[in-house]
Amino acid sequence: MTVKQLFDKQDNLKNDQKFAFEGWVISNRGNNKLRFLVVNDGSTVNNLQVVVKGEEANEKFKIDDINLGTSIKIEGILKLTPEAKQPFELVADQVQIINLADNDFPIQKKEITLDFLREIPHLRAKTAIFKAVMLVRSRLMLEIHNYFQERGFLNISAPIITSNDGEGAGETLIVNDGSKDLFFKQKAFLGVTGQLHAEAYAQVFKKVYTFAPTFRAENSHTSRHLAEFWMMEPEVAFCNLKEIIHLADDMLKAVIKNTIKKQAAEIKYLDELQGGNLLDTLDKFLSKDLTILEYKKAIEILKENKKEFEEQNIYFGLDLASEHEKFLAEKIVKGPVAITNFPKEIKAFYMYQNKDKKTVAAFDLLAPGIGEIIGGSQREESYDKLAKRLAELKINQEPLQWYLDLRRFGYVGSSGFGLGFERLVMYVTGISNIRDVIPFPRVAGSIKM
Amino acid sequence: MTVKQLFDKQDNLKNDQKFAFEGWVISNRGNNKLRFLVVNDGSTVNNLQVVVKGEEANEKFKIDDINLGTSIKIEGILKLTPEAKQPFELVADQVQIINLADNDFPIQKKEITLDFLREIPHLRAKTAIFKAVMLVRSRLMLEIHNYFQERGFLNISAPIITSNDGEGAGETLIVNDGSKDLFFKQKAFLGVTGQLHAEAYAQVFKKVYTFAPTFRAENSHTSRHLAEFWMMEPEVAFCNLKEIIHLADDMLKAVIKNTIKKQAAEIKYLDELQGGNLLDTLDKFLSKDLTILEYKKAIEILKENKKEFEEQNIYFGLDLASEHEKFLAEKIVKGPVAITNFPKEIKAFYMYQNKDKKTVAAFDLLAPGIGEIIGGSQREESYDKLAKRLAELKINQEPLQWYLDLRRFGYVGSSGFGLGFERLVMYVTGISNIRDVIPFPRVAGSIKM
Repeated sequence: MTVKQLFDKQDNLKNDQKFAFEGWVISNRGNNKLRFLVVNDGSTVNNLQVVVKGEEANEKFKIDDINLGTSIKIEGILKLTPEAKQPFELVADQVQIINLADNDFPIQKKEITLDFLREIPHLRAKTAIFKAVMLVRSRLMLEIHNYFQERGFLNISAPIITSNDGEGAGETLIVNDGSKDLFFKQKAFLGVTGQLHAEAYAQVFKKVYTFAPTFRAENSHTSRHLAEFWMMEPEVAFCNLKEIIHLADDMLKAVIKNTIKKQAAEIKYLDELQGGNLLDTLDKFLSKDLTILEYKKAIEILKENKKEFEEQNIYFGLDLASEHEKFLAEKIVKGPVAITNFPKEIKAFYMYQNKDKKTVAAFDLLAPGIGEIIGGSQREESYDKLAKRLAELKINQEPLQWYLDLRRFGYVGSSGFGLGFERLVMYVTGISNIRDVIPFPRVAGSIKM
Repeated sequence: MTVKQLFDKQDNLKNDQKFAFEGWVISNRGNNKLRFLVVNDGSTVNNLQVVVKGEEANEKFKIDDINLGTSIKIEGILKLTPEAKQPFELVADQVQIINLADNDFPIQKKEITLDFLREIPHLRAKTAIFKAVMLVRSRLMLEIHNYFQERGFLNISAPIITSNDGEGAGETLIVNDGSKDLFFKQKAFLGVTGQLHAEAYAQVFKKVYTFAPTFRAENSHTSRHLAEFWMMEPEVAFCNLKEIIHLADDMLKAVIKNTIKKQAAEIKYLDELQGGNLLDTLDKFLSKDLTILEYKKAIEILKENKKEFEEQNIYFGLDLASEHEKFLAEKIVKGPVAITNFPKEIKAFYMYQNKDKKTVAAFDLLAPGIGEIIGGSQREESYDKLAKRLAELKINQEPLQWYLDLRRFGYVGSSGFGLGFERLVMYVTGISNIRDVIPFPRVAGSIKM
């Protein structure tokens, strides 16, 4: 049994029940007669307090030797402690030290900064905050799979290595084999999206999704960008803009709700760390119905409030900045909002061209506390319109010919979106730097391990 | 409702029930008075036969225009057909053509080879065989997630871009940003394994797994190798060789059993395609308990039977060839077999060094019909032994220092294995070329789309 299972059924625990477990020591305090070991077994952010009673036991089990990080095996008797902070503790019969930690173990009781921990990604999961974040991350990933699985979506593996350099934005990473001969006999890139490939599969299976690493050679050293991150992209045939927006909203709400419920201890820990702000923020998202707001209308609202912003030059055609997005979600709508029908100039070539000839059927889903979390669109159906748009944008059609050809063989419309998975983990954990929500972050100029 | 749902509850279907659906036309035969459209909606490999009765209806709905690949929307009345091959058909009230297929649609009734389909990966999922394979693939992926989720494993994202070039085997793909400046300011590789990173996380969470794309710059043009493939790697703390072998066997059996059950129509289709061999082969694996066989003993058996092989030079130290592996699983054990304790010279530096000083605690799990499907090991616990082994193998210790350091901070032993996911898909679908079990295969010299 794990410590998580103990906590999960704490209301039905009996006094004097036997319990044995293995874990790592978080603290060791007390005296020769009475020692308190706080131990974590990795199943939950909650620790189990172990009491070692009596001089004899303390000497026999060499409790004095145990330092932070030590791995131990413990057998004992559970004692309910309804008056104490922790609901129960384990009075040890047997303590077996597996391995001590060397003296230079960097995770000690003193204050440790997240900056410092970023230098030791192989060890930082031994802190409570990273335990909580990684347990939430894993849960979010599985909840996303379950959400789509229950609704009959096919998981497809879009390729990582691709001959398409995304949208020609020049932010792709190039792959070769190190020798001057190109292993693939042509230019090869690390994919920036699986969407185009997912569209091909939506023309057979109707509902598909990808969930895989994605790459950007962005040189921006912000707290919101990684060179390597996970992206989830559903693509749905027979689906228009409005329907895909509602799928995005429903998926986010279901996944976040289940995670809050199933990782209650971790969310509670993270919420307390942030002075109770985390659950408040999430609740503003969960409890409010989605608002849909045309980009044109959003620009009007922002113009009326331009004194609130650093960037005050607000016009139809502006690519909204993070401050604008947060303002709309937090001050105007006070809940989730989808901005729709953006000027075509600031969106990708494959988006459905609206009848006004100025806008495309795209959306950005903004959430209070984080801003943009999902972007998507209905896809252009017309071969001719796609070809014309590529020409206007001076994008070479040849490598995308296969994509255009999808329109020629019994094509049905489809819509989809992309969710930057680490952005979601940041949102649900309240962690403000994206490097702290993925085990081994990759950014320009640095690859640790 | 989907066609899959119709078939799933065919025993409870009522005659004359209304049904409406959208899909793509697989065939169109009959005459002006009575037409049969075979239509697939992507939810299952099973098609639904649609009957259009009467000259008037055929003319009104332009049934004559409908060619292979056409997308259509149909409303009608279900008729049970207990005497016919298909258990029911749909008599159409309404037929709406969404889009026809251009005349050069490459998937026609005539025989199409898998070779030819490999040239059009964006369209080949429109064939029955690829529908079946991709439905099975998606199911296998989700069953793997579920298996580990139910057992409390943490999903972790090991990095794809890494500064470790695997085991120095020189088969890694190198990444840079295309300019001569290195984006990461150091050599960067595409990962060949997430194991080392998973080991770090097993020292906190005990049970973890990775499931992500993996890369090899292998130039071998075989039917079993890809440059990009998905790999699943669990890592379990407090677990020895024998325990990890049993986890591998149990996981495979559970995942395959559930897939056969939940994708019954697809497995049936693939089994018939292979003359009933597929289910036989899988049953030989599922119905037999795992045998554990020491490498030393396996070599003796192979020596005794060396006339069976092309490679007859069999000695302690030989890296078993595929023919040897298949012989052991199919002729000797006639079921799943784990070969254990290989000579250290043919295995990786991180494997647990046995007391005999000659072998390491590694295993390969072999299955009838495919040979090696999983490889794994118990990991070496001793910092000193690891350092010594690296020196013997002339592998630079510095980039692996973090990995060795895991042993210094409350280390507990762990074991793990790797499952090449496409090998599993090949096994469960009976498909003999690995390029046909992943949507967009990547091999040396070729990246389509």
